[in-house]
Amino acid sequence: LSFYKFHCTYCSWESSPSANVVKCETCKDPIFIKYMENPSNTFQPSYSNVTMPLPLTKSDDLITLGEGNTPIVKMNRVSEMVGIDTIGKLEYMNPTGSFKDRGSAIMISALADFNIKEIVEDSSGNAGASISAYGAKAGIKTHIFTPSTTPLPKLNQINIYGAVNHSISGTRDETTEAALKYARETGMPYASHNLSPYFIEGTKSFAYEVYSQLGLDMPTDIIIPVGNGSLYLGMWKGFNELVDNGELTSIPRLHCVQARAVMPIAMAMENKSWTPADATPTRAGGIAVSSPPRLGQVIKVLTISGGSVITVEEEEIGQAQIQLSRYEGIFGEPTSAAALAGLQKLTQKKVIKSGSKVLMPITGFGLKDKMPE
Amino acid sequence: LSFYKFHCTYCSWESSPSANVVKCETCKDPIFIKYMENPSNTFQPSYSNVTMPLPLTKSDDLITLGEGNTPIVKMNRVSEMVGIDTIGKLEYMNPTGSFKDRGSAIMISALADFNIKEIVEDSSGNAGASISAYGAKAGIKTHIFTPSTTPLPKLNQINIYGAVNHSISGTRDETTEAALKYARETGMPYASHNLSPYFIEGTKSFAYEVYSQLGLDMPTDIIIPVGNGSLYLGMWKGFNELVDNGELTSIPRLHCVQARAVMPIAMAMENKSWTPADATPTRAGGIAVSSPPRLGQVIKVLTISGGSVITVEEEEIGQAQIQLSRYEGIFGEPTSAAALAGLQKLTQKKVIKSGSKVLMPITGFGLKDKMPE
Repeated sequence: LSFYKFHCTYCSWESSPSANVVKCETCKDPIFIKYMENPSNTFQPSYSNVTMPLPLTKSDDLITLGEGNTPIVKMNRVSEMVGIDTIGKLEYMNPTGSFKDRGSAIMISALADFNIKEIVEDSSGNAGASISAYGAKAGIKTHIFTPSTTPLPKLNQINIYGAVNHSISGTRDETTEAALKYARETGMPYASHNLSPYFIEGTKSFAYEVYSQLGLDMPTDIIIPVGNGSLYLGMWKGFNELVDNGELTSIPRLHCVQARAVMPIAMAMENKSWTPADATPTRAGGIAVSSPPRLGQVIKVLTISGGSVITVEEEEIGQAQIQLSRYEGIFGEPTSAAALAGLQKLTQKKVIKSGSKVLMPITGFGLKDKMPE
Repeated sequence: LSFYKFHCTYCSWESSPSANVVKCETCKDPIFIKYMENPSNTFQPSYSNVTMPLPLTKSDDLITLGEGNTPIVKMNRVSEMVGIDTIGKLEYMNPTGSFKDRGSAIMISALADFNIKEIVEDSSGNAGASISAYGAKAGIKTHIFTPSTTPLPKLNQINIYGAVNHSISGTRDETTEAALKYARETGMPYASHNLSPYFIEGTKSFAYEVYSQLGLDMPTDIIIPVGNGSLYLGMWKGFNELVDNGELTSIPRLHCVQARAVMPIAMAMENKSWTPADATPTRAGGIAVSSPPRLGQVIKVLTISGGSVITVEEEEIGQAQIQLSRYEGIFGEPTSAAALAGLQKLTQKKVIKSGSKVLMPITGFGLKDKMPE
């Protein structure tokens, strides 16, 4: 495993890979993976048309359920509605119905390489279902901590894949605390999709695919619902690797959408104070993260990429979910619909201008969540 | 539209294409599409790596939600369990969560070519959800007749895509009667996934993809849950076209799985009498078709391809659904799990022998149906 290291982009700390390290041991910032040799260890994962560096020794090590390689579709009526050329990348068409499968595939494959047999994770639902499925395929026993507000379809998924579900009566943050405590007590790795650098190595394939599918016709703007930022930061890393390799010369503006109910990133971007106690309930459960551990990294990418943060109201999310279904035949979960609500506001505010070309990931399947009222 | 005709394989009747004809006007057998010119009108649909003849004038006519191009995955623990090399093609990873999207894409595209604005369909759920989604994308208003036993997630889908749902308190057959009556009274086309020859032109892409993905390493046996046979007959037509074009020299044995609760095909294969009154409730709603209009065609393909029919019990279906999830990380609906239950019986009976290579389509997402008890 000498061809890559764990790397802190904040203080430049480095260490050898390990199943148990998820934060910089000096400054406590969440870490990334850095490749030592380039490009000798790139390979083409089964799910992609392109090669990319991955933290696996050989492609046979990839534990796959058929993730990635999701279609890009034109959104004609949405484009007409907002007056901007808009396309969608259908991330909900992943094996467990959300983009998380990209991250889980690489994280679980790496943990299997370390010969890990049992792990702990906490999730509002999608990541838990995804990690349960890949755990099942890998023969790794998974303990998934979920808040008691998790929608039933996501709990059903977690259970049928054979995971042990620990339901926590408390906030999303208290669920994380309970998972951390359990990991400490049992000595099992804390395989957090929010922290593991392997998870981001998985989501970066989104960027490689966009480039492979669109070539020189790249979007000018990408609009992403952001809670923890695992897709957001993953695509940033992927686009950066493509620039470093000389394939791309620039990176699209990467915009964040948050629910007004839970908006730590939006407030941090404006240098305003915000605490988890300010959070109110939201139907966009996938981005209801009140203290995102990678907040500082998201703010940095927002600044460098020229992206902006937009917040959306609950009714706007509900309306956008119905618009996506009725105009485009795309049934996304409320979290995914938040991107469309955000697009409408960003075009109204002229942050996204006429002549732009917008891409939205549709991050999760509508079947996984409560229905709009 | 002179490059293809409607064709009755039973009595050789032919006619020009029409949105309103779904059966042979002479012998009442459901019809197929026959191409006049070959191969000048083949083209590559967006969803596929291969070209195939399609009943559309140009590829721009295709109304797509990103269907097809589904992954094939190895099923290591299932292979171990049954002692036969088994792979799965993940048809549930289609835009609305079932293989029906292949058929809907072509059927709705053809109806849009005919400038149709409103259609009638009846469905136990999946086809209705699929046709609603493609109707939404095409701007075609859809009336979906469903039995009152349809699972809630499928009804939710039908509704969110903006279809008019007509719920019928009665059997699946009574639902069909009600849809037919409504089509007659309103003059709208009866766009039935069970009868439309366009639907089968869509599902045939399954065969083209299997060949494109596996090449010379083709399966010896394919095991398919069969109700109406739209996937079964579609893949048969696709494989036959590949033989006619000289790409393939033989076709895999195509086996049917039915629930013991609703087994018209199994009984017909044994020349035993069976009536809709013999049907009992089954969790495999997608194959609960007690009087399949294409029954004779399915029996013919079974005979020619060397396939067999196997019936499975309700407990076997439930157990197989859990096995698929826990062994392979694949959460299929009960109808899909019936294929695995069937595989176990076919290997026990030595109908499928050691050294065979089996492919199973996983036809629908588990999120779309009731959970196992």
